[in-house]
Amino acid sequence: MNLRIPGPTPCPPEVLQAMTKPMINHRGPEFAQIIKRIAARLQEFFQTKNDILVLTTAGTGGMESAVVNTMSPGDKVLSASCGEFGDRFAKIAETYGAQVTRLKAELGKAVDPDSIRKALSADPSITAVLLTHNETSTGVTNDLKALAAVCKEFDKLVVVDAVSSLSSIDLQTDAWKCDVVVTGSQKGWMVPPGLAMVSVSEEGWKAVANAKMPRFYFDYQRAKSSADRGQTPWTPAVSVYFALDYALDLMAKEGMQNIFARHARIAAHTRQRVKDLGLALFADEAVASNTVTAVHVPETLQARELLRILREDFQVVMAGGQGSLDGKIFRIGHLGYVQQEDIDKAMVALEEALARLGFAQAAAV
Amino acid sequence: MNLRIPGPTPCPPEVLQAMTKPMINHRGPEFAQIIKRIAARLQEFFQTKNDILVLTTAGTGGMESAVVNTMSPGDKVLSASCGEFGDRFAKIAETYGAQVTRLKAELGKAVDPDSIRKALSADPSITAVLLTHNETSTGVTNDLKALAAVCKEFDKLVVVDAVSSLSSIDLQTDAWKCDVVVTGSQKGWMVPPGLAMVSVSEEGWKAVANAKMPRFYFDYQRAKSSADRGQTPWTPAVSVYFALDYALDLMAKEGMQNIFARHARIAAHTRQRVKDLGLALFADEAVASNTVTAVHVPETLQARELLRILREDFQVVMAGGQGSLDGKIFRIGHLGYVQQEDIDKAMVALEEALARLGFAQAAAV
Repeated sequence: MNLRIPGPTPCPPEVLQAMTKPMINHRGPEFAQIIKRIAARLQEFFQTKNDILVLTTAGTGGMESAVVNTMSPGDKVLSASCGEFGDRFAKIAETYGAQVTRLKAELGKAVDPDSIRKALSADPSITAVLLTHNETSTGVTNDLKALAAVCKEFDKLVVVDAVSSLSSIDLQTDAWKCDVVVTGSQKGWMVPPGLAMVSVSEEGWKAVANAKMPRFYFDYQRAKSSADRGQTPWTPAVSVYFALDYALDLMAKEGMQNIFARHARIAAHTRQRVKDLGLALFADEAVASNTVTAVHVPETLQARELLRILREDFQVVMAGGQGSLDGKIFRIGHLGYVQQEDIDKAMVALEEALARLGFAQAAAV
Repeated sequence: MNLRIPGPTPCPPEVLQAMTKPMINHRGPEFAQIIKRIAARLQEFFQTKNDILVLTTAGTGGMESAVVNTMSPGDKVLSASCGEFGDRFAKIAETYGAQVTRLKAELGKAVDPDSIRKALSADPSITAVLLTHNETSTGVTNDLKALAAVCKEFDKLVVVDAVSSLSSIDLQTDAWKCDVVVTGSQKGWMVPPGLAMVSVSEEGWKAVANAKMPRFYFDYQRAKSSADRGQTPWTPAVSVYFALDYALDLMAKEGMQNIFARHARIAAHTRQRVKDLGLALFADEAVASNTVTAVHVPETLQARELLRILREDFQVVMAGGQGSLDGKIFRIGHLGYVQQEDIDKAMVALEEALARLGFAQAAAV
């Protein structure tokens, strides 16, 4: 099966094999070493000296943790969204009682830094900004450096969903002054789902100290005080830690800049192959993501049928559209454990599936 | 390594091997089948026709989910605790704004049904009761049938922490009218940590509909609506599902009653061996747990030193005491993938470690 969705992503066989290690005591010395080793390696990929916390949860749980640990009910929060995951971040904050001002970019476009500047100028009572680095639902990468810089002009807390970017796309947590950054094991990290990894800056910890949204399982102070002793407050997904520990080794060997370059190269290749098939890219190419490519479903075709044929007849799994884009786009994941051959095979399958649906000839005109 | 802590527990090699299956689409047909198969099997072990939800989190996250989905800030809740995990349940409810009346049994004893009757008679405004089936910190199993019956005399919502009992000790969810029951993959299920499994009764769903505590990641309505489509709302710990799917097969083959009988037999054997060494059991034997045995640390010994020798020199890992029992007891896990030989080997090691610390002779007197 050629799994070409934007997460969970394929895992190297050795990473899966690492999960067959017998269970160990999560409060013993061996696990303490794993926790410390993972945190140190993650700091390199987060490009940060900040504390790193690892939580047993999905990316969405990581996003929720970022909200409830840094905000209080009634806080004014700016959400800068360009898709489903940006909207989800805003919804989480509202669920816990924040007053959210929603800034929405057109789907397929990036968030404009000036729109954030305007919103923050218009309402000085805003205390935090929710940003998405890579919007998985549209295949758009925001210029996080520019967006964070505007937020910091106004001295706001910068809270970043980097679930589908971190490790695959450059994100300079410290240099760009990102206070809370969230990612998930099942994306570029080449590890099964189950862990969210979060960095918290000094400013972030000040926000945590004042934040009054209720939290227990996701509590950062408990997580930090346990991490300092080489533990987690609650029983962690030990096997996924084994996998992450191993995958971080592989990633260190490849080298962070090489990983970024590989993702950039494969993404460009994917977009070119898609266009060569006569298909239209959904995202503005100037801001197209290096981890996921969204493609317009030709008007004459049914997305569901195309995805079914790819899956059943060609063993290629692509993703559909989410929310208002359901049926209108399909998405190709190219993050983590991926090489150009994987994309080439998927494209051959896509071409044949399109031909079978009567599309290829039209495109060739 | 002979891992004799009350979770995470050892996993059968084939269960660990199941996690090496390549990653799949969590929104595809194959995963939908796994979700449905697991839910059906879990219903048998929960002895329920209620909905089963599987959440990617630790047992504590499962406990939090039970609270936030069924209660509102200001609700009066009775907590009947006989140890650390009972106290934790109460603390979670308080964190989210419940007014908790705390009933505490003496450590090592079970909760007295009459104490619940008195508390519920004294305050008719209480709406829900938090119960612990098996208190992992003291090695006590409460008479859940009797406790739940008293709660239902007063028509209260019954919310049960069954993290370290379910699958190992008889728990008749429907017959005993337990509204929300929570367990965790890393206990009797012989599966690595990462999943919490929860059942919700019709009464439970009525509570969910009215509950106003904030929730997003742990939201039962989202989980149920996704489960009905063979999905989860957020990316699940796919590999741990593979493991659970396989382990439930093994458990079905052994048979639920046989599993209960094996746990009862091994627990009795463990207690006898402990007493034969001249050590004193911590829990009242009449209510001693079939999944974990707590043992007094002899006054002349240091718990930490005993556990270190067992771990480093005999490759046997036991657990210390928690909270106020730190240093005063140690605990032996015997749940899930365990046979009498595992206990016998651990006991030989314990005897030698005690001898090395100068205890054996004294005990032999």
